[in-house]
Amino acid sequence: MRIALAGLGTVGAAVLRLLHAPNDFITARAGQELRVMAVSARNSQKTRACDLSGIDWVTDARDLALRGDVDVVIEVIGGAEGVARDVVDSAMRTGKHVVTANKALIAKHGRALAILAEQSHAQLSFEAAVCGGLPILKLVREGLAASPIIALRGILNGTCNFILTQMEQKGVDFATALAAAQQQGYAEADPAGDFDGHDTAHKTAILTALAFGHPPDLDAVFIEGITAITPLDMQDAAARGGRIKLLGMINRSAAGDVIQRVQPVFVPYDNRLAQVMGAMNGVEVVCENSGGLFIQGAGAGGDATASAVVADLIDLARGHRYAPFGRSARE
Amino acid sequence: MRIALAGLGTVGAAVLRLLHAPNDFITARAGQELRVMAVSARNSQKTRACDLSGIDWVTDARDLALRGDVDVVIEVIGGAEGVARDVVDSAMRTGKHVVTANKALIAKHGRALAILAEQSHAQLSFEAAVCGGLPILKLVREGLAASPIIALRGILNGTCNFILTQMEQKGVDFATALAAAQQQGYAEADPAGDFDGHDTAHKTAILTALAFGHPPDLDAVFIEGITAITPLDMQDAAARGGRIKLLGMINRSAAGDVIQRVQPVFVPYDNRLAQVMGAMNGVEVVCENSGGLFIQGAGAGGDATASAVVADLIDLARGHRYAPFGRSARE
Repeated sequence: MRIALAGLGTVGAAVLRLLHAPNDFITARAGQELRVMAVSARNSQKTRACDLSGIDWVTDARDLALRGDVDVVIEVIGGAEGVARDVVDSAMRTGKHVVTANKALIAKHGRALAILAEQSHAQLSFEAAVCGGLPILKLVREGLAASPIIALRGILNGTCNFILTQMEQKGVDFATALAAAQQQGYAEADPAGDFDGHDTAHKTAILTALAFGHPPDLDAVFIEGITAITPLDMQDAAARGGRIKLLGMINRSAAGDVIQRVQPVFVPYDNRLAQVMGAMNGVEVVCENSGGLFIQGAGAGGDATASAVVADLIDLARGHRYAPFGRSARE
Repeated sequence: MRIALAGLGTVGAAVLRLLHAPNDFITARAGQELRVMAVSARNSQKTRACDLSGIDWVTDARDLALRGDVDVVIEVIGGAEGVARDVVDSAMRTGKHVVTANKALIAKHGRALAILAEQSHAQLSFEAAVCGGLPILKLVREGLAASPIIALRGILNGTCNFILTQMEQKGVDFATALAAAQQQGYAEADPAGDFDGHDTAHKTAILTALAFGHPPDLDAVFIEGITAITPLDMQDAAARGGRIKLLGMINRSAAGDVIQRVQPVFVPYDNRLAQVMGAMNGVEVVCENSGGLFIQGAGAGGDATASAVVADLIDLARGHRYAPFGRSARE
């Protein structure tokens, strides 16, 4: 399988390292060689933690989608618009499969991309877009395929959870906790999309789509972030026997209506989600037939997200196909 | 997809109810109708919690495997030998796919069955054999496909965990806790295979196979059960800040050797596995690239196990194929 890689940041470099690891682990799992033909990134001069020898360097990432020697395009540039969207769009129009870690793109343009995928018989895979270290999309789409989901609640943003953990454990306010997070590399230079709840909302919309078999509907998500949380809220929660967590929440009513919310909520200590601390992610799923299920792991980080990208590649190499959101996008 | 069902106990009846549920949920997920053509069970006179109208009754389950109008045989009879083995064996010889919940069969005869699967291009699926309510095999085989596993530890037998929980919380001995488990339906009439550790060993051998891409090697599993655990052990563990859990444990050494053990071990309270109580199952996986991952859910129970069987059917209907233990059985 011939691959083009758009984006050589933390995740892109980690994908290259994984695919070039000096054992046949990935090849054995995929049943064939996964070969990187070409890469593209903004800055060709930058020193990177990966070996680019023998790989074509392409200046404009959009050109990757037009190459005849590529079967799959990996998009790890990020952002719902601009180059990332152009690359994914034209890759799918030319019948190439796309593997992306781009939650904003999928949450905002999922419907249009799913229709494109159907038209061109290309696959759109995005396990890495939601909780890199947890194969939660595969779990919802396939593992729980026979068990209709009633409710799902998750800590989907490691940066927010790290900050709430700091505020609780050190008794500091939001600004002080944010500074600590940035110092330790847990927060981006411009992390507003994390704190205002939008990153969690993207992931919630994608999880809802997988759980109920329709494209994401980001406008339907009620969104409240964590910037207004104070040390007093933390003390109050502790006095009530729990802590504050930013959760993405999905509930299906008896009538079949689905409610999607992102909100900081009180979680009692004896609930599994209360025990997910620091930069970890955790998701609780309630199903009709399987009772409750809980999964926890590393949220993001280059290696975890890259592993999710490569797991999607392996699925593709094995010939596993599915509609992006479970069933036809036109239904 | 045309199905034959061998076994109409708790799991078999639940599979039928799921497939005959009055909505198109399963059909939509599978992309085609899953139609039960024939069933077989020991006693045709028994009243069962499922509707058999329109389905052929076959007296000898072995005959299901020989029918021309069947694509997939579901085996939920149980036991590593006898009728269950015969049905699976002859179904695969005639090129039919097999979906089974039979851990003893897979753990003991996995290698021979994987070779058969390869010869006849039939698929052998067994998600339901290990932790019915947790899609742990799919997670190890596909979700973590790009992330080599270093270690895995799990509470894989709900009955043992229920009894250890009773012994700890009520201060009673093994025999008293067992009687309570039987009264509440958490233990079979003859649960020796649970307590002597063999059930956990079957699951450990299967998980090892999936994690490292070779057939199960049950003889390599060191096995110690829970019958010798006393209330004094529980008090001692509590004094040391933890509790006793029966774990299936897999460790890969730096040299690549894999060690498989089933043993009651001390688990500190702050470890996730210590918090898996009652009849629940929980598994902790340590990977090279994704850090730690933890998953918890209902271990067995008819509905959870049936959902795992039907999830395997949906994968089959979608055309997803894989070698039973990740790569060719002859390697």
